[in-house]
Amino acid sequence: MNPLAGKDILDIPSLLKDEIDLILETSREFEESLTRQSHIPLLHDSILVTLFYEPSTRTRLSFEAAMLRLGGAVVSVAEVGSSSVAKGESLQDTVRTIEQYADAIAMRHPLAGAARLAADVVGIPVINGGDGSRNHPTQALLDLYTIRKERGGIHHQTVAMVGDLKYGRTTHSLAEALTHYDVHLLLVSPPDLPMPDEIKDELRRTGASFEETSDIERAAREADVIYVTRIQRERFASSEEYERLRGTYRVDMALVERSRPDVTIMHPLPRVDEIAAEVDGFKGAAYFRQARNGVYVRMAILALVLNAV
Amino acid sequence: MNPLAGKDILDIPSLLKDEIDLILETSREFEESLTRQSHIPLLHDSILVTLFYEPSTRTRLSFEAAMLRLGGAVVSVAEVGSSSVAKGESLQDTVRTIEQYADAIAMRHPLAGAARLAADVVGIPVINGGDGSRNHPTQALLDLYTIRKERGGIHHQTVAMVGDLKYGRTTHSLAEALTHYDVHLLLVSPPDLPMPDEIKDELRRTGASFEETSDIERAAREADVIYVTRIQRERFASSEEYERLRGTYRVDMALVERSRPDVTIMHPLPRVDEIAAEVDGFKGAAYFRQARNGVYVRMAILALVLNAV
Amino acid sequence: MNPLAGKDILDIPSLLKDEIDLILETSREFEESLTRQSHIPLLHDSILVTLFYEPSTRTRLSFEAAMLRLGGAVVSVAEVGSSSVAKGESLQDTVRTIEQYADAIAMRHPLAGAARLAADVVGIPVINGGDGSRNHPTQALLDLYTIRKERGGIHHQTVAMVGDLKYGRTTHSLAEALTHYDVHLLLVSPPDLPMPDEIKDELRRTGASFEETSDIERAAREADVIYVTRIQRERFASSEEYERLRGTYRVDMALVERSRPDVTIMHPLPRVDEIAAEVDGFKGAAYFRQARNGVYVRMAILALVLNAV
Repeated sequence: MNPLAGKDILDIPSLLKDEIDLILETSREFEESLTRQSHIPLLHDSILVTLFYEPSTRTRLSFEAAMLRLGGAVVSVAEVGSSSVAKGESLQDTVRTIEQYADAIAMRHPLAGAARLAADVVGIPVINGGDGSRNHPTQALLDLYTIRKERGGIHHQTVAMVGDLKYGRTTHSLAEALTHYDVHLLLVSPPDLPMPDEIKDELRRTGASFEETSDIERAAREADVIYVTRIQRERFASSEEYERLRGTYRVDMALVERSRPDVTIMHPLPRVDEIAAEVDGFKGAAYFRQARNGVYVRMAILALVLNAV
Repeated sequence: MNPLAGKDILDIPSLLKDEIDLILETSREFEESLTRQSHIPLLHDSILVTLFYEPSTRTRLSFEAAMLRLGGAVVSVAEVGSSSVAKGESLQDTVRTIEQYADAIAMRHPLAGAARLAADVVGIPVINGGDGSRNHPTQALLDLYTIRKERGGIHHQTVAMVGDLKYGRTTHSLAEALTHYDVHLLLVSPPDLPMPDEIKDELRRTGASFEETSDIERAAREADVIYVTRIQRERFASSEEYERLRGTYRVDMALVERSRPDVTIMHPLPRVDEIAAEVDGFKGAAYFRQARNGVYVRMAILALVLNAV
Repeated sequence: MNPLAGKDILDIPSLLKDEIDLILETSREFEESLTRQSHIPLLHDSILVTLFYEPSTRTRLSFEAAMLRLGGAVVSVAEVGSSSVAKGESLQDTVRTIEQYADAIAMRHPLAGAARLAADVVGIPVINGGDGSRNHPTQALLDLYTIRKERGGIHHQTVAMVGDLKYGRTTHSLAEALTHYDVHLLLVSPPDLPMPDEIKDELRRTGASFEETSDIERAAREADVIYVTRIQRERFASSEEYERLRGTYRVDMALVERSRPDVTIMHPLPRVDEIAAEVDGFKGAAYFRQARNGVYVRMAILALVLNAV
């Protein structure tokens, strides 16, 4: 039995390095298999429920495509807010009921800790598809997979995370995941939107090498990977402040041309204009490939927790 | 051909006792089969449309999981209100169109009689997933199945229905279903929320044994099965009245301890707080098992009306 | 390889007559096969994403049923408005992301040209399920298929289009499709809601035979096919004007009795009351059969563009 069989995937710190390696290696095998066949019938008629308390087309589609590519079946619950929850049902009761129908749950919730709360009361695997501003472990795993594939490995890379590092949950989970590797992190954010202390403490505790700066030029000069995230208008006191910063943390071809020739540009998507459309044609623009990698990584996670590999 | 092939499942009174027995027995066989395999490919690529005019995550998921466990396919229509209906289309036209695409329809509608209206104009089976405050036959069947399984049989049980018996459609359909068995019904409700005369007339007509009371202690003292339903705030003139009654018709461990040691606690779910969370660990708390039974019973209904068994 | 393999289906003018014939012929073969078996496993585990920026239960269901009848899998995105789009993502980014998960996209969008915009940036087939008031090619193809089947052929038919010809996109695409056949078109509309010049220019350019009139009696007297469309209240300056015209362009049994005995009545649905319910029993009332034909035609389109036939 693989070590992840029956397990929940709630956050990065709960995963051992060996488990992360197993997920990445299984993802690679699935990617290879899918070049030869359109699906891999490992989960025939297992049922995944995608339980989304806030909309996320991208993450939901990625999980559902992953399940279907494995021959499994999907039931979507994207309207939770208007249904049982509206009738006053607790999250625990909702997931305990879904447990009666499904073999696994992939969930997204606006509150940090919701996925763990759910996992604590059900016997089937719960996969966190993002909760609050804190955890998004499957995104971090597909980011790792993308770095490994685009760069030929993760060790010895300088990874710049650029944008809103305070609320951007994908950067939090990715930073935690990168503590397992010998990398250098450049944390590039507006002064008011820094990486939370909690994450920086974890970086220090694990001996990770990192620097903070508000200067995106350092990312251009030094980074092998520039990981860009959205800066949201609602985080700012004034529209002027937002417009000013948005312009500053924008990746366009001028910036790409000041960067290393083989630089890799990543983004968890959706993007608004923090990466200019002109960058899309650049060979190192990996963000849509990154989205595709999400299917392989979520296939690996589903097959592993449902003990089908 | 089984006697339910091609039939609609609209309400309990339209079902013969033999047909109910057939559904319960088929459910039992499916439950047994599912312990040995994850699905039963009887409905390969038949299409069920779940047509929900009001949200009901639980009922929809249960139908969809049932169809998928039988190897069938599902198309969900949960957004009816915002689509064709908004364009002024009649229910009859909507279901006559869906008939062109699907092999069966499971529907939920806020108006009593809607399922029959639909069934009258289409040639494929229509299964009523709840219409108005009147009928919810698949819930009643899964409730019967749960009583039979938890108690070893239905005959000679004292079943107390507790809560809002006026608007609680699950208790209406279950009361009708129990007229086929030699049981004693205790109808326990606030004086303003009694079981409707129409149902009580049916109980009298069929010679069913029942009593009405507002005293939940009688349920504790006498019942083999306590079937709890939600009391909804909107049924009351004042918040004070609601709060007072809600407290009165609440099942907690203190009440369970005053009940028969082998008492079975049921609830159609979702619950708010009419059953205290502390009761969940009690061995007779059957409500999540009851939800699971819904999958077996809906599998049986689908396989029977689509003539696959 | 069939000539449509890998192609987009964006509008009727982009299709060659041979391609239209191939779609109609493949539809006929699928219809025949489905009378003998419930599905045709040509697209096993290919994934269709239905991306609907405005609700259209009917079109979405028809595409999803078509994909499922071919053994394929479906992921629905009906809530786009509330998700990535709300986060400011462009249509191009949305479809480029979906391209990473899916094998084909069927999309509906309120703006004319949206489907082409999408098709221009992705490598997988995009099928236009209606964009703006302009194109609805799959509807036109199923309309052609219905005329051929109901009338024994398309040539030499007089087809009257009745109602709002200005905004009714189904009549625009159907008029374009009929330019490939030797038919006579009667364009019957209120004076303020005529067929757009752009379409009439195309009719003239291709030498199509057509007349415009506001007199529905001419449709009754002369037409082999009466194709009725909805007149929407929001197109009129006043409610009185709307009520007056709505009454005028209504098909009831009195009008049917003044028509040719073998007249065929079609409607893209949903209907409000532009066809009286009493007409439904008339043998020439083809609109629900027309809806069913939509499944065969969309099966043909999916199987052809995904190169499975």
